[in-house]
Amino acid sequence: MPRFALKIEYHGGPFSGWQRQAQGQPSVQAAIETALSRLEPGAHTIAAAGRTDAGVHATGQVAHCDLARDWDPFRLSEALNWHLKPAPVAILSTVRVDDTFHARFSAIERRYLFRLVQRRAPVTHDAGLVWQVMNPLDLAGMRAGAARLIGHHDFTTFRSSICQAQSPVKTLDEIAITEHPYPGGREYRFALRARSFLHNQVRSIVGTLERVGAGGWSPDDVSAALAARDRAACGPVCPPQGLYLTGVGYPSDPFAG
Amino acid sequence: MPRFALKIEYHGGPFSGWQRQAQGQPSVQAAIETALSRLEPGAHTIAAAGRTDAGVHATGQVAHCDLARDWDPFRLSEALNWHLKPAPVAILSTVRVDDTFHARFSAIERRYLFRLVQRRAPVTHDAGLVWQVMNPLDLAGMRAGAARLIGHHDFTTFRSSICQAQSPVKTLDEIAITEHPYPGGREYRFALRARSFLHNQVRSIVGTLERVGAGGWSPDDVSAALAARDRAACGPVCPPQGLYLTGVGYPSDPFAG
Repeated sequence: MPRFALKIEYHGGPFSGWQRQAQGQPSVQAAIETALSRLEPGAHTIAAAGRTDAGVHATGQVAHCDLARDWDPFRLSEALNWHLKPAPVAILSTVRVDDTFHARFSAIERRYLFRLVQRRAPVTHDAGLVWQVMNPLDLAGMRAGAARLIGHHDFTTFRSSICQAQSPVKTLDEIAITEHPYPGGREYRFALRARSFLHNQVRSIVGTLERVGAGGWSPDDVSAALAARDRAACGPVCPPQGLYLTGVGYPSDPFAG
Repeated sequence: MPRFALKIEYHGGPFSGWQRQAQGQPSVQAAIETALSRLEPGAHTIAAAGRTDAGVHATGQVAHCDLARDWDPFRLSEALNWHLKPAPVAILSTVRVDDTFHARFSAIERRYLFRLVQRRAPVTHDAGLVWQVMNPLDLAGMRAGAARLIGHHDFTTFRSSICQAQSPVKTLDEIAITEHPYPGGREYRFALRARSFLHNQVRSIVGTLERVGAGGWSPDDVSAALAARDRAACGPVCPPQGLYLTGVGYPSDPFAG
């Protein structure tokens, strides 16, 4: 059967997460599988690079599916987008890949963005799309705290207690924090990059770095939390609505060209 | 009575526009006036710099109000934001101004942003926040078309038939068009600046320039449309949801410092 890779954008708000749920709660995976079944009747099971949590968004999720027909990739995107309406899920690109490509197991990099807005007045346009805090934040402090987490570490402290990964040891390649103008406040964007992440790792890290930015934690406290290898040593886990899976890396980018 | 200037952000989606409606449809003005009546009982009437249409957003609308009590400006912002919930209207800043300040009549500049997204797949996070078109757009062509509109002109062609301005002659100071990466497509931002705008002027101009970007119109067609001084010569008026009132200029910025 021809295999296709899909690049997917979604608003995480209405979904219980990427993964199809036994109890039938709405999931992004089920929305796309249902759209596929409109094209080729029967059950479909798709695999994704990142199994995002409830409320987490994506602008560059990647999944693959096997279909009976050798679809023109452009027509496949268009047909899926038609059947996905009105769910806030969009197929940005579809490409034909060979049978050795697996959206999850072939991936060698995941990229996440976290949007944090600091201002007093409630956000309007970005409600559900950012995490808002009231207190001012110190960019240099957050960058100094982030530097303590880069590299190869045991991230037990920054890992959900229900994380299913075999090992808590991961290599975090980058946390780039940038400050941007925002009406009535400031926006901080955290761009994280690693081969793979533990469950809740990004939200645990950003929640901890926000405490550094607010002045409650020092960069040394971040180092101590990491060294503790104890979930209880983590700062507050921040909410999901600021988090976006922005891209997935493969040895050869199937969407290039 | 002490006079206050308010800097206001809102999501235009749920509102029939800025202006209070005789039939009681939801308006931004009525939402803020109702919040004011929670602070000081009785009727309030506020005046704004730009009477935005249904669906049009703001990140920097300015209005003024007269209150009986000499409120601390920070507490006034906080109290209004409390009473505005859950409407998507936020007071970004409040300042005490003297009686000669009038949000509308003292204004010497209005700034608007229009967000246009070009891609095939439906937008998800930005639904209701941008105008989406499918066809590719030529940035250089749109800039060349925009250049034909800068300056002091009779803008009858680019003015709604129900526009109440006494004269169709306006000076358009700037149309800056920039191109930005957007998942699966491109975003074009149009930043327009003038002392004041005619009704539907920005949407008439952006709708016309989009036609130039798509290749259907040439820059010369834009010049000819302007010279015609005829509403029927205008390109299609684009929808409101990409439009934002981003700022208002005064001889002395009341919100500075």
